[in-house]
Amino acid sequence: MSSQINILPPYLVFLGDVRDEVTAKTGLGLVQWRGPDCLGQARLPGCEIDLGLPEMSPPQAASAGARTLVIGIAPRGGALPVSYIDVLVQAMEAGLDVASGLHDRLGAIPALQAAADRTGRRLIDVRHSSRDYTVGNGRKRPGRRLLTVGTDCAVGKKYTALALHADLRQRGVAATFRATGQTGILIGGGGIAVDAVVADFVAGAAEQLAPAADADHWDVIEGQGSLFHPAFAGVSLGLLHGSQPDAFVVCHEPTRTVMAGVETPVPSLEAVIDLTTRLGRVTNADIRCVGVSINTGKLTASAAEALLRETDRRLGLPCVDPVRFGVAPITETLS
Amino acid sequence: MSSQINILPPYLVFLGDVRDEVTAKTGLGLVQWRGPDCLGQARLPGCEIDLGLPEMSPPQAASAGARTLVIGIAPRGGALPVSYIDVLVQAMEAGLDVASGLHDRLGAIPALQAAADRTGRRLIDVRHSSRDYTVGNGRKRPGRRLLTVGTDCAVGKKYTALALHADLRQRGVAATFRATGQTGILIGGGGIAVDAVVADFVAGAAEQLAPAADADHWDVIEGQGSLFHPAFAGVSLGLLHGSQPDAFVVCHEPTRTVMAGVETPVPSLEAVIDLTTRLGRVTNADIRCVGVSINTGKLTASAAEALLRETDRRLGLPCVDPVRFGVAPITETLS
Repeated sequence: MSSQINILPPYLVFLGDVRDEVTAKTGLGLVQWRGPDCLGQARLPGCEIDLGLPEMSPPQAASAGARTLVIGIAPRGGALPVSYIDVLVQAMEAGLDVASGLHDRLGAIPALQAAADRTGRRLIDVRHSSRDYTVGNGRKRPGRRLLTVGTDCAVGKKYTALALHADLRQRGVAATFRATGQTGILIGGGGIAVDAVVADFVAGAAEQLAPAADADHWDVIEGQGSLFHPAFAGVSLGLLHGSQPDAFVVCHEPTRTVMAGVETPVPSLEAVIDLTTRLGRVTNADIRCVGVSINTGKLTASAAEALLRETDRRLGLPCVDPVRFGVAPITETLS
Repeated sequence: MSSQINILPPYLVFLGDVRDEVTAKTGLGLVQWRGPDCLGQARLPGCEIDLGLPEMSPPQAASAGARTLVIGIAPRGGALPVSYIDVLVQAMEAGLDVASGLHDRLGAIPALQAAADRTGRRLIDVRHSSRDYTVGNGRKRPGRRLLTVGTDCAVGKKYTALALHADLRQRGVAATFRATGQTGILIGGGGIAVDAVVADFVAGAAEQLAPAADADHWDVIEGQGSLFHPAFAGVSLGLLHGSQPDAFVVCHEPTRTVMAGVETPVPSLEAVIDLTTRLGRVTNADIRCVGVSINTGKLTASAAEALLRETDRRLGLPCVDPVRFGVAPITETLS
């Protein structure tokens, strides 16, 4: 798929009127992992997220050298708010391409397609692939695989996978980051948006995403959703089966009580470890949990350290916050 | 979706060169549940399945009054064998519509689209819906729901749901059959082919398929795949979560050792009951197994009876073969 994606930097990151970090995770991820390519941010009235980038209108960004407006939000369901259309048209008129990871195809919105035709700019939907996938076969492939899983959506599965991948590479371990969501694809330059794949082919797509490799090569696969999330658990399970991971890391946000967008309680780390191990055995009898990644962003440093220590002791597994303290305690056990 | 489906009977059922009953399940289901509408069968050399219908070429069927050629096979992955195209073109030239439940869209095959344009006949893809679905919300809906689940694909989940539905209706219980696969849709005249829905929306589609209803109304929902199948478990889980069943029936084929199309062993009934209950609790705390449906077609009558008795005793649940002995022991506990 990477050959089909060609998003020209630098970027103007558009946040719309987003009010929470969960929905703004695409923009936050771009700044974290592709910071030098992010030239500015564009926001609508009411927006409460600040990426710390210079504020720019599309024409200002174009004058400063930007090539692409990237839509930096990932709303539940992936629909494009109608109120965003004017800014996107303005961007194309200023000479920018528009890139999106939303479920809605930009080209299906007549005003956007008309503007693209008029200006010659491109509408790039990274979430949609013209590739065909086959159904899964469940057969064990050579190579080693690690999957990040979660107690919920948007708890740091992508960030953790990127951090593990970077740390493995720094240790001289052959490793590839495998993106499964829009931001991961924008960051990594390739991958498969598994939640946009037709349901019958999710496991097969995951098999193709992380194909047979050298025996000592690690694929570090970005997880999606949660096996306990009432809307998205099927995606998580198809990805788990197709990835057939040897190792998984559970990602967690300790201050949440219910899962994203629903009233269902967040499951315990123990429940996620147990269920992931049990279900993962269908395609890899040796699957095991190798660590826990906790997003302690809402805790004080001392509370964060105490939580990691306590969780480590309770589960007997290395527990990290990749943002605050790095992922070395986990990668040390892999390399 | 039913308003979008208008397949005119009577049918010519086309079996291609299919060699096994699992792949021919669409044709077999049509004959079982819509027998009076099935006028004849068309087969290619090498076909080893006989539906017991008069053998007819498309022109013969058209002369006898057939209105639609229905493709009666459901191959893994849903691709249309190229060798079938000539017969489908011949059918349109004879005046028949062509209806298909395959993943491949008939209209995407140039020779078929050209023939449809030339003859004015319709290409009907029941598996594809132009409807948009929303993501699941996990909220409990009024009404009662029963889902058939399986130890594998193609073990009788559709047949069992149709039999349970018919028996409930006969007992005067308000009940609706909810189809989730191509044959079920062809039989029931409506439904959603959940395995063709984009992965993120499977649970939401299941919520829409079996919407809020009267407190004593039963939706009898056709299950898909198996929570243990390495290719399709994600579909099964999304359907389970979105259906939020109060009751489920496990369907099983006792002579299989590995699951359809893969080398993964068939799970035990106990494992399926336990996992379905555990995962189903995410959206319905009161989920319970109300029976087991065993396809004893490959056993002698006495072996079948012994197996049902033994399983009943082992699990403490009513065990039936809906084909041989009906489903009364299960519906008695529901009505």
